Amino acid sequence: MADALSYWGWGYEDRWPDADTRRMFAREIQTLTGFGPLEVREPVPLGEATLPDPRVEPPAHLASVAREGPRERATRAHGRSYRDIVRGFYGDFASAPDVVLCPRDDEQVREALAWAEERGLAVIPYGGGTSVVQGVEVDDPAAHPGVVCLDMRAMDRVLEVDALSHAARIQAGATGPRLEDQLRGDALSLRFFPQSFALSTLGGWIATRAGGHFATRETHIDDLVESIRCVTPRGTLETRRLPASGAGPSADRMLLGSEGALGVITEAWVRVRPRPFWRARASVRFREWTDAVAATRAVAQSGLGPSNCRLLDKREALINRVATDGTHVLLLGFESADHPVDAPMKRALEITTDLGGVCKHGPTLATEEEATTDRWRAAFVDAPHLVNSMVSLGVIADTFETACTWDRLEELHAAIVHAVKDAMRRVAGGGLLTCRFTHVYPDGAAPYFTFIAPAKRGSELSQWAEIKAAASEAILAHGGTITHHHAVGRTHRAWADRQRAPLFTEVLRAAKRTLDPAGVLNPGALIA
Amino acid sequence: MADALSYWGWGYEDRWPDADTRRMFAREIQTLTGFGPLEVREPVPLGEATLPDPRVEPPAHLASVAREGPRERATRAHGRSYRDIVRGFYGDFASAPDVVLCPRDDEQVREALAWAEERGLAVIPYGGGTSVVQGVEVDDPAAHPGVVCLDMRAMDRVLEVDALSHAARIQAGATGPRLEDQLRGDALSLRFFPQSFALSTLGGWIATRAGGHFATRETHIDDLVESIRCVTPRGTLETRRLPASGAGPSADRMLLGSEGALGVITEAWVRVRPRPFWRARASVRFREWTDAVAATRAVAQSGLGPSNCRLLDKREALINRVATDGTHVLLLGFESADHPVDAPMKRALEITTDLGGVCKHGPTLATEEEATTDRWRAAFVDAPHLVNSMVSLGVIADTFETACTWDRLEELHAAIVHAVKDAMRRVAGGGLLTCRFTHVYPDGAAPYFTFIAPAKRGSELSQWAEIKAAASEAILAHGGTITHHHAVGRTHRAWADRQRAPLFTEVLRAAKRTLDPAGVLNPGALIA
Repeated sequence: MADALSYWGWGYEDRWPDADTRRMFAREIQTLTGFGPLEVREPVPLGEATLPDPRVEPPAHLASVAREGPRERATRAHGRSYRDIVRGFYGDFASAPDVVLCPRDDEQVREALAWAEERGLAVIPYGGGTSVVQGVEVDDPAAHPGVVCLDMRAMDRVLEVDALSHAARIQAGATGPRLEDQLRGDALSLRFFPQSFALSTLGGWIATRAGGHFATRETHIDDLVESIRCVTPRGTLETRRLPASGAGPSADRMLLGSEGALGVITEAWVRVRPRPFWRARASVRFREWTDAVAATRAVAQSGLGPSNCRLLDKREALINRVATDGTHVLLLGFESADHPVDAPMKRALEITTDLGGVCKHGPTLATEEEATTDRWRAAFVDAPHLVNSMVSLGVIADTFETACTWDRLEELHAAIVHAVKDAMRRVAGGGLLTCRFTHVYPDGAAPYFTFIAPAKRGSELSQWAEIKAAASEAILAHGGTITHHHAVGRTHRAWADRQRAPLFTEVLRAAKRTLDPAGVLNPGALIA
Repeated sequence: MADALSYWGWGYEDRWPDADTRRMFAREIQTLTGFGPLEVREPVPLGEATLPDPRVEPPAHLASVAREGPRERATRAHGRSYRDIVRGFYGDFASAPDVVLCPRDDEQVREALAWAEERGLAVIPYGGGTSVVQGVEVDDPAAHPGVVCLDMRAMDRVLEVDALSHAARIQAGATGPRLEDQLRGDALSLRFFPQSFALSTLGGWIATRAGGHFATRETHIDDLVESIRCVTPRGTLETRRLPASGAGPSADRMLLGSEGALGVITEAWVRVRPRPFWRARASVRFREWTDAVAATRAVAQSGLGPSNCRLLDKREALINRVATDGTHVLLLGFESADHPVDAPMKRALEITTDLGGVCKHGPTLATEEEATTDRWRAAFVDAPHLVNSMVSLGVIADTFETACTWDRLEELHAAIVHAVKDAMRRVAGGGLLTCRFTHVYPDGAAPYFTFIAPAKRGSELSQWAEIKAAASEAILAHGGTITHHHAVGRTHRAWADRQRAPLFTEVLRAAKRTLDPAGVLNPGALIA
């Protein structure tokens, strides 16, 4: 499966549009943004790309799980942020691992770590490779005698289903579709659908505290984890499977967000649930952004717990063809496997219309098969493929997200808009910035921004870096978190270091020294 | 306020019943249990008790916040478990701190820690003093040149209310009533009501991962914490106030459950909410325990999210006069500040009656003032006062709780019942064991047990220790947690050490060395 993936861009090779399709796409972007003429380019073929020779050979006892081909190494040279795709497109695979190991069990993970410790190699635990924060490449390969990519995707089984407790034990390398396919036989589902769902893995979600399907309540994978099994250079750390505990600080919560720097997550017990039968959906339009935010907040604080509560600003709504009348749109959804959800939807619509919203077509209530949802999900998880085309057209396109309490939201939003627009003007003469709330809480929201701007060929990365830095500074200065669900990696490290209490940084370093004394695990990710 | 508290027993001096009242109570217990004649005794007066002379004098700059009187020291000699109350009743205050310091601000906390580090003293961060796990006394006072009780209750203010975000910044020493009184002006409430509510403090709840009001969803204080401020010997650790974040492992989650061993929590931002207006209550009776458990599980997995979902076994139901017909009773409650809750109650009753439950009097729906709830809460928080009388009558009375996944529940429950009954038979010729579920989750439940048995005067503590060990062994052997919401302290340490992944114990030790290099903070609590 991994080999059908693009070696340089998001997702699958066969999703790469031909030049004519990209030319049509270019005209759409020009119409939407007013950017000047966009030239269609082709990615550098792998044979012509910069790919350093491998510096290490796997030992004989790991040879059967090693892959050393240029394609395997190039594909895993970086994650899939805009920055990564630009590098891949232009054939820069300088950060490629020297070898890829695909362990089939914990013992092979242990052997890989032992070998790395012995040789002083850097080991990068690798799931779907969809990091957008430089989570899967070292800062400087030359600083290590070798870099090993530990690709976990051969460990992709659902090992055990506890239907009584609605829980399952799943190997870390299972991608979204792989684990859902295996749960389907028990009529259960994890219902965790990040945009990278098709590619990313349970272990990656846990290591990065990924954000999922639900806009309220169990928004992060954190809430779905019962226990974790993790192989470290010092041995295996396995937590007791429990629905809840008060026996001291939670070990799971230390591994959630550990970004491969503390250990290699090999499996976890997670909470699953029956597939929903009852559904309701509605969209509510607002003329004024402040009304839309107030209504979203009121729903988030109502205790109704909608599964969907995503606010699109008018630009998001326009680009996604949700509303072309210049209104901001709140998408509401409820779902349940147990009971009809028309009453909570009715109440949510009362709340939002009281605050200036208009719901033209009433809610859609349904008791339906998953087909519609599956279609929607397919479109949603497809969206990042567009970045490949953007890079080909010379358009900077990236997203970033944060979260803050409601009291700071207006100021934070304004500061980000100001800073990013200003930076786009400086580096690119202008650009488009859109915002949606992906997750909401009684005490705050997670705004998610998309920016696109015309690139100067060859200067994309410095242009991008200046816009990204402007956004990050605004977030830090106005009480946001540098990331709500995309991890720290290396891209966010400087800001995460400022956000984090310095004494807790010392605690994390002490934890790393304890579990990974030689410092072989993902060096430079999360903490320096 | 602290001085109106009993120096030896649970709660307030003026709640100590006279000998006649206790004699009546003795007859009730005899009727209920068949225990032999119970003799009423009086506690050893403070003047005749064992209270070592203080070994250290506070420095001049802390003299104004120091208390050194025998009563102040004796009151804080231990927590308020059965074991503690027995020791207090018989005048054993060997573990009394040498001095009590009551800081008024972070600076005085820092000064206290600096003094302790300089002199090598043990410092016990102290909230309501209601620990039931030996959380507030060192194992051996002689092992330290002095022991300082850092009583946080002078820091009891709500410092800031963010009504927009439903959040408040509250000092750690605020007890339940203190913080609720201050929030009332904004029509907000933390709605966190552990049984120790009247006495215990926000800081204590956070340090021990206390369990609160809600039987589902936000069951632990963990879920209500936005950020924590904590003074350590190395400086202040303050986390960023956020509704959610994915920026690496959560520092809050390391402090939640830190039991005073990593730092002194001085304040926190917590999530508050409007007081509920809509309510529904019902009780459902079951002939068979297995039916009752199945129905409780079905409600826990329904997504309805009742605020109350407490299952009392027939013995609990009888003792609490909830049902005298030998049935097990599921207490259901829903509450909302936003919308009526009759629909979810109706559905919960459908589920439970489908599974063999009988709800005789239909649900009580109400839109009411807090008065009724306040009365119920008063009775609930009053209950632990009974242990004082039990000790006076020579009755062993204690509770313990655990949590496990649904698949292990039946076996765990049976093993605990067997082990505890067997131990009571051995050490006391018999006794009574009751069970209720205090909190439930989609993937499991938290059973809470109460045992009472006749004591042999003078042997109470060894009798109790044998019963407690039997219960703890059964919990560990059958997949439970050694504590669901009463912390590790010293009572549970041996079992928590076995439950916890050894590598995580090393991580906790490394965290402690980082934040408390001299090891002055609550030595022996949580980790040895």
